[in-house]
Amino acid sequence: MLDGVFKTADSEDGGTLLPLDMMSLLKTLFPLPRSLTGDGVRATLQALKKHIPLDIHEVATGTKVFDWDVPREWNIRGATIKTLDGRVLVDFADSNLHVVGYSVPVRGTFTREQLAAHIHTLPDQPDAIPYRTSYYAENWGFCLPHSLWQTMQDEAYEVEIDSELADGALTYGEFLIPGETEQEILISVHICHPSLANDNLSGITVATALVRHFLAQPKPRFGIRFLFLPATIGAITWLAQNEDHLDRIVHGLVLTCIGDDGPFHYKKTVNGAVVDLATEHVLRHSGHAFETLEFSPYGYDERQYGSPGIALPVGCLMRAIHGTFPEYHTSLDNCDFVTSEALGQSFRLLVDLIDLLQRNVTYRRVDGRGEPQLGRRGLYRAIAGQKEAGGASQMDLLWILNQCDGNRSLLDIAERAKAPFSRIRAAAELCLNAELITEVRP
Amino acid sequence: MLDGVFKTADSEDGGTLLPLDMMSLLKTLFPLPRSLTGDGVRATLQALKKHIPLDIHEVATGTKVFDWDVPREWNIRGATIKTLDGRVLVDFADSNLHVVGYSVPVRGTFTREQLAAHIHTLPDQPDAIPYRTSYYAENWGFCLPHSLWQTMQDEAYEVEIDSELADGALTYGEFLIPGETEQEILISVHICHPSLANDNLSGITVATALVRHFLAQPKPRFGIRFLFLPATIGAITWLAQNEDHLDRIVHGLVLTCIGDDGPFHYKKTVNGAVVDLATEHVLRHSGHAFETLEFSPYGYDERQYGSPGIALPVGCLMRAIHGTFPEYHTSLDNCDFVTSEALGQSFRLLVDLIDLLQRNVTYRRVDGRGEPQLGRRGLYRAIAGQKEAGGASQMDLLWILNQCDGNRSLLDIAERAKAPFSRIRAAAELCLNAELITEVRP
Amino acid sequence: MLDGVFKTADSEDGGTLLPLDMMSLLKTLFPLPRSLTGDGVRATLQALKKHIPLDIHEVATGTKVFDWDVPREWNIRGATIKTLDGRVLVDFADSNLHVVGYSVPVRGTFTREQLAAHIHTLPDQPDAIPYRTSYYAENWGFCLPHSLWQTMQDEAYEVEIDSELADGALTYGEFLIPGETEQEILISVHICHPSLANDNLSGITVATALVRHFLAQPKPRFGIRFLFLPATIGAITWLAQNEDHLDRIVHGLVLTCIGDDGPFHYKKTVNGAVVDLATEHVLRHSGHAFETLEFSPYGYDERQYGSPGIALPVGCLMRAIHGTFPEYHTSLDNCDFVTSEALGQSFRLLVDLIDLLQRNVTYRRVDGRGEPQLGRRGLYRAIAGQKEAGGASQMDLLWILNQCDGNRSLLDIAERAKAPFSRIRAAAELCLNAELITEVRP
Repeated sequence: MLDGVFKTADSEDGGTLLPLDMMSLLKTLFPLPRSLTGDGVRATLQALKKHIPLDIHEVATGTKVFDWDVPREWNIRGATIKTLDGRVLVDFADSNLHVVGYSVPVRGTFTREQLAAHIHTLPDQPDAIPYRTSYYAENWGFCLPHSLWQTMQDEAYEVEIDSELADGALTYGEFLIPGETEQEILISVHICHPSLANDNLSGITVATALVRHFLAQPKPRFGIRFLFLPATIGAITWLAQNEDHLDRIVHGLVLTCIGDDGPFHYKKTVNGAVVDLATEHVLRHSGHAFETLEFSPYGYDERQYGSPGIALPVGCLMRAIHGTFPEYHTSLDNCDFVTSEALGQSFRLLVDLIDLLQRNVTYRRVDGRGEPQLGRRGLYRAIAGQKEAGGASQMDLLWILNQCDGNRSLLDIAERAKAPFSRIRAAAELCLNAELITEVRP
Repeated sequence: MLDGVFKTADSEDGGTLLPLDMMSLLKTLFPLPRSLTGDGVRATLQALKKHIPLDIHEVATGTKVFDWDVPREWNIRGATIKTLDGRVLVDFADSNLHVVGYSVPVRGTFTREQLAAHIHTLPDQPDAIPYRTSYYAENWGFCLPHSLWQTMQDEAYEVEIDSELADGALTYGEFLIPGETEQEILISVHICHPSLANDNLSGITVATALVRHFLAQPKPRFGIRFLFLPATIGAITWLAQNEDHLDRIVHGLVLTCIGDDGPFHYKKTVNGAVVDLATEHVLRHSGHAFETLEFSPYGYDERQYGSPGIALPVGCLMRAIHGTFPEYHTSLDNCDFVTSEALGQSFRLLVDLIDLLQRNVTYRRVDGRGEPQLGRRGLYRAIAGQKEAGGASQMDLLWILNQCDGNRSLLDIAERAKAPFSRIRAAAELCLNAELITEVRP
Repeated sequence: MLDGVFKTADSEDGGTLLPLDMMSLLKTLFPLPRSLTGDGVRATLQALKKHIPLDIHEVATGTKVFDWDVPREWNIRGATIKTLDGRVLVDFADSNLHVVGYSVPVRGTFTREQLAAHIHTLPDQPDAIPYRTSYYAENWGFCLPHSLWQTMQDEAYEVEIDSELADGALTYGEFLIPGETEQEILISVHICHPSLANDNLSGITVATALVRHFLAQPKPRFGIRFLFLPATIGAITWLAQNEDHLDRIVHGLVLTCIGDDGPFHYKKTVNGAVVDLATEHVLRHSGHAFETLEFSPYGYDERQYGSPGIALPVGCLMRAIHGTFPEYHTSLDNCDFVTSEALGQSFRLLVDLIDLLQRNVTYRRVDGRGEPQLGRRGLYRAIAGQKEAGGASQMDLLWILNQCDGNRSLLDIAERAKAPFSRIRAAAELCLNAELITEVRP
């Protein structure tokens, strides 16, 4: 527990760390006009700051970050398509998906044909608004339901996008729960999508809930660093600005699309890592359906964390897989697509996973040759009293006593014993209390 | 052949090394009142000494052995439950399973209710006597058929256990057939079970037959060390007393429950070892049904040999798996449960396996680049004359000539060639005689 | 392109390097009386020299090559079996399979019974002439159709083999297409079989076509060394004479029986090598049926290249597997058994494979941390313009940018991406041109 760090007067809950109502937060964030940069991102981070402490970084346009330059900042005040007699047909105020992200300002009368080149619809999902951006090519456009576009048969329309693309900053949020060591677990979510709930308000709200949860726990072994970043350029910016300390990251996860009620998907790290084994272990023992995916260089920021010269051990946890579900990048990815129960499952799974990573210690038998005599240490009794779920069994104790050779971690032993980590951990606690094992520090 | 080592006047067979009648030995040993310590163990080792040489060690009560102390010695002269009018209902003389091992002395009249707390039966196997011990908690008890206990409805009974739990010694037997090198193969059996035939008189008699067999053979490459020990504390005692020389053990096997006619089961060593590959090879080519089991820390003394800081390459060969067959630890594990044929199969398999381990040499081609010319060395003829089983084929010879690179052992080559070791070994002999290969010593 | 190396006046095609008509070459070579040594081999190599440059080596009888001595040279002018009244029943002029290879000279009248000991037929294939040799035991014999032998019921026959077994030389052909480095790819074919088309005129003609193809290409990274050798003794001779430079061979293939229209078979190198992975990759993406075979020490010269002390990374590519097809080592393995289409497929597959081995470079991202910005380099457009087969896709580019860490070769990346090498190579070219990656030399 970090005293004084987060008991501020403006906390919605008065400075206590009650469990976060994730669904309520998600709905609050939903209408904010997020993009790669700009005031929508700032408003989002300020909204999070009511629940968790957060360092907000502003990185100036043009700053060199690895191979990239921080782009100009985009802001938008409004946008409409009107009939020539002034009837509003499309209004950014109704949905921030209506305007192609990073659209340059435009105002004027366009023939339907001229306008058509700037209209994006989904003929196969005629009632859905698509989500489109044009970050790196100057352009403008509107996204609207195909059904609406089909009704728009006037010769010409009045078009206005009241936006601004100008030097400014890229904004991201960061918070570190300090650990006993300099090593860190990284949790990274992207914050650049506007009104899309699963992709990625689900990741943002679950990460926020994790910050609150772990702030209320005793100081962990590894620090836990949370990043709330615009995708790609945000991760690259953070990597470039923290290049000297990247070796502190010993485990990491990108969270995306974890609010739907489908099975979990875990995409492995680029070179294999303990977090892969740990996540599979937790998923396997969670009772939830899941599938493990091989690493590929297409996806979210695990690409950046796993690029050559970086190659951090960062996997990606999702439920629905981006690009493959019908609601993806459309107005159908709304607050109804995400469920409170699914957010809760994802949150609890991540708590278990982070706990496992924190507690995955390597032990060595103290003067350990042959099995120790358990009877005179009262360990039989201790075990008998622990038969409830999560407690160690006699067999778990034998695994610990046999396998703690100073090389195998508790997770390695749990996998070999085909037992949940929690039980093996409980057996290790008993042995630790009996001074039969001792921690081995790398 | 060890001249003079074992041609003593008191040998039952007059000092020759005729094959042992294992079934007869097993029946001789069956009634002896073995326990963790005491005169039943001594009588057992003396009975073996009529067939094989044996060093009998006595380790005093209280001796510190790793984490343990050698326990007090237990002896029992008799035990009965009588009706108050003197009728004997349960008598240790009928079965040494009737008394819980390490029962403290008791004598007196007990109500049925008082007695019931000390009675062990098997309601699901009402005619079987269970086997129970209480080594490390002072207690006493009787084991009897559930059917008998149900007929015992008197108000009270006369109970007597004429036992003694006192400072003394732990007794174990050991014999080394010396080899040409200091390295050793370990064969370990437990001797602490009273009248149970498969678990583990089968192991004891087969180990005894192996001693006789290998004593009659030329001096082997590796010494073969045989241990006849009380389980757990015996192995820990031996390990503690031989700690400085454990690196001599290059292969090892615990033998248990190998007298029933079920399929073989081989439980692998804790960290993987050549003996795992060798045992699977011999089993696969034996024609017997078998299954390989992963290591687990529950079982017999492979646990101790495989504990951290020890980690010897010792697997466990069994047929029925302890704890899983209905006769296990009951009076049904008697001389009828074990068959002479099964003991013979186990013996022959172990002879083959130990021979393989002894002969699993690594060779290198002498000036070997390209295939040698076989014709001028008469090797074609040699092969033609060897087509009987066990002899080398043309193909085996090619495997030897191609694969003897100074790194691969004959077993490695046999596995790659998918040929039985005996054939690959025969091909190696031909090449050795033709001076085409030479032994590589580590 | 090697200017001046192979534009000689006596080239059939006047010194240009038009694609070789492999079937025509094969038919030209078919009747030549090849054996382990002798003028048939010389005539074969001279015939090849009309199409490709070739160094022809003569190694004197008795030369010590590793464990072997170069054998005496065998030449044959003719051989017949006649009836006593002079009617020719069997004539070497009709088929050079009629005489057992290395038959000593013989002339005289033999009873049918005497002759029978020297007659080889195939009762199960009564119209086929078998192929037999007796290289290392002095003997003589005739091979004829079983149906013919059954009609030969005279009491005696006139027999003549006009051969000569005398000191001379072993002859082989060799040609190196030089590369930019000293490292080489080895292509080896055996040339000791007389009128057998698939085994191995197919290998000889495809190898010849490969020489012509690669001579017409720009200088490759690795040299390509072609060997046309008598089997076993030829390979051993070449290895013995080039022992000091064997480490130049970084990849190698023995070609045999690659002219039939069956599925491809690739037999792996003795210790595993990149050529195994490369060949499987090319076969998998070729659309041809294929199977991969484990290394075994029975076969062609991959045995010699893979023998202890040599252990070169040389696999064997075949279609029909020697020893397993009905036409094998009989007169049925004739020019009809081989098809022009199959030769062409084998040729093109080998071109792809050798190209892959040449181009399987390892790259490193230049200052590569995080993904580079593709847009400003016009790489999106470049990709869009490359959607035809063989061109790189957006995904291939991401794989290259993510995986080029200085350790993984393009083949490793192609395998991980499950993409054909050509596409991954195309993506690498784009990145190389954009100076995003740089070659890593070992």
